[in-house]
Amino acid sequence: MKFNGRNVHISKKARLGENVRIGDNTVIHDNVHIGANTTICDNCEIGEPTADYYSDPAYRNAPTVIGADALIRSGSIIYAGVTIGQRFETGHRVTIREACLIGDNCSIGTHGDLQGQLTIGHNCRLHSSVHLCRESKLGDQVFMYPFSVLLNDRYPPSTEVAGPEIGDFTQIGAHAVVVGQVSIGNHCLIAANATVTSDFDDHSFLLGSPAKRRSDVRELRSEDGIQLYPWKQRFSRNMPWEDADKDRSGC
Amino acid sequence: MKFNGRNVHISKKARLGENVRIGDNTVIHDNVHIGANTTICDNCEIGEPTADYYSDPAYRNAPTVIGADALIRSGSIIYAGVTIGQRFETGHRVTIREACLIGDNCSIGTHGDLQGQLTIGHNCRLHSSVHLCRESKLGDQVFMYPFSVLLNDRYPPSTEVAGPEIGDFTQIGAHAVVVGQVSIGNHCLIAANATVTSDFDDHSFLLGSPAKRRSDVRELRSEDGIQLYPWKQRFSRNMPWEDADKDRSGC
Amino acid sequence: MKFNGRNVHISKKARLGENVRIGDNTVIHDNVHIGANTTICDNCEIGEPTADYYSDPAYRNAPTVIGADALIRSGSIIYAGVTIGQRFETGHRVTIREACLIGDNCSIGTHGDLQGQLTIGHNCRLHSSVHLCRESKLGDQVFMYPFSVLLNDRYPPSTEVAGPEIGDFTQIGAHAVVVGQVSIGNHCLIAANATVTSDFDDHSFLLGSPAKRRSDVRELRSEDGIQLYPWKQRFSRNMPWEDADKDRSGC
Repeated sequence: MKFNGRNVHISKKARLGENVRIGDNTVIHDNVHIGANTTICDNCEIGEPTADYYSDPAYRNAPTVIGADALIRSGSIIYAGVTIGQRFETGHRVTIREACLIGDNCSIGTHGDLQGQLTIGHNCRLHSSVHLCRESKLGDQVFMYPFSVLLNDRYPPSTEVAGPEIGDFTQIGAHAVVVGQVSIGNHCLIAANATVTSDFDDHSFLLGSPAKRRSDVRELRSEDGIQLYPWKQRFSRNMPWEDADKDRSGC
Repeated sequence: MKFNGRNVHISKKARLGENVRIGDNTVIHDNVHIGANTTICDNCEIGEPTADYYSDPAYRNAPTVIGADALIRSGSIIYAGVTIGQRFETGHRVTIREACLIGDNCSIGTHGDLQGQLTIGHNCRLHSSVHLCRESKLGDQVFMYPFSVLLNDRYPPSTEVAGPEIGDFTQIGAHAVVVGQVSIGNHCLIAANATVTSDFDDHSFLLGSPAKRRSDVRELRSEDGIQLYPWKQRFSRNMPWEDADKDRSGC
Repeated sequence: MKFNGRNVHISKKARLGENVRIGDNTVIHDNVHIGANTTICDNCEIGEPTADYYSDPAYRNAPTVIGADALIRSGSIIYAGVTIGQRFETGHRVTIREACLIGDNCSIGTHGDLQGQLTIGHNCRLHSSVHLCRESKLGDQVFMYPFSVLLNDRYPPSTEVAGPEIGDFTQIGAHAVVVGQVSIGNHCLIAANATVTSDFDDHSFLLGSPAKRRSDVRELRSEDGIQLYPWKQRFSRNMPWEDADKDRSGC
């Protein structure tokens, strides 16, 4: 049904690995390198030129690298100068601006909006409509939920660009706002609708506007009395420890 | 100006009713059934295959049904396996994932994001940028405002999928978050920016994070002293009781 | 790399200035007037017909005016009847519905959603995913941050259409909600996640849900003790006083 080669444009300066599929109406610009077995769906723009392209006759597209085994869904735009690891996955109409560095096994949901010049570790999962500011930094296994945002400017407008830095395994709830050059530790949980404006240590459960530390996440229990955090022990889907878990459970 | 047949692809396995119009650059995939007098605008993907399509050579597209008299605006994506009633309307770039069941006379605004396997009753109206999680359920005449979300996971991440269930006539304000397997009654009003994490009875006016019952909605008055809720008595546009209202007022 | 003329459609009733560039897969509808040196990128719909087009055989597209030196990024939709000044800039997939009036030197970020029949002054900057309701009004130099919204209906649903009015230089933080026919003065700062439901005077720093005046913005200091507001003295990028600042600093 797809991949009919209708209205596709692939630059002669792009390099595609084996078994790469390119959807209809998609453009692959200069100096894009796509790893083997990656699928780019319809209506995408890969290696989108930066603003200079429109005014600088000497503009040259920076290299864009997408690793092997990716699935980029339709309508997504990935700018020139982005580097992405293996097994990347997106929803629809994702925007990734220039000079983002994204690790292996990450996913970005529909309408995700990455403002460029930021760093994401491995195994991160951004649900729909997450917005990351420039110069923000996610560790490994950071999950963000719909409409959560990282911002770099507490008293706007300003020329500041330093954004938040989020530790490994931290979960950022829906509609949460983390703003300014703050550092959030590993294994934190930021509640839905919280507004985080200062640094917090590992294992903090953060709530409110401005967010305060309500407790240690290790104190949180399910209704059955099971310890909920760190969450690694109860969630493994698409995580590096998934197979080990399957082995243990005999599946 | 539109419907010029440029770069349109309609599967031979799709079935279109009388007077159906298909916009430029739109794809109608296998096993899509479109009712009479429906208009699909430019750049849409209807019957979009699910993730299995990319890896399963035996993949077959589930039937997608869109009722008569619909208006689907440009850039919208409706997955295979979705069933939608009569007189459906969307804004631009709406995403409706697989196995959603949507009643008659519903509308979904620009950037609406329905995560699949959910149920929406009749006469519901979702304004721009509403996000619904899997396994959520809306009754009839539920209205949701910009950036409101239903989520299924209170202590993320987890493998839980049970989402909120919202009663008839309930209004969910802008930026409100309803999270977990909670049940909200009929005729409730959830204030803008509220975070709802537990069950509430009919006629509740909910406010805050976590949301608490502030009053019975029937106590709310306009500045002129008019009772505001239930709202059926003061709003009828595109609702089933619209004509009766017009008859009464002599229009 | 771009502007190859692939699958472009320009109405014979459109009028394009000198050096206008139109991206691939873009449609320019009837009665669109585009000023000199403006660039419209790929996959845009300019002069998009209003809802009447689908049902009224006598429909005629209202004039759409985009000033000189604009850069409209890919996937954007601008409806018929919109009037925009000079040096306009957008991110990707912006939606501007009918009869919006936008001044000079404004920018609207990715996924911006303007609901029509609203007014924006000069030098305004809307970051990603800002939503403006009908009949809202922004003064000059108003900046809005991701997911902030203006809404016109405090006790929804209703047939009210009067939206908020925002004064010059006011900053509206991420995820803030301003709702109803309220008037916010000049030089205000609305904090992230605030919910504003009443009028406020010039220089108000607003916080919370419902938002209260926390202080005069002129009392806010940076960590170095510098007065932060009015912000005109510390931020000039792309603002009319930029060159004067450069002259003063000797750059």
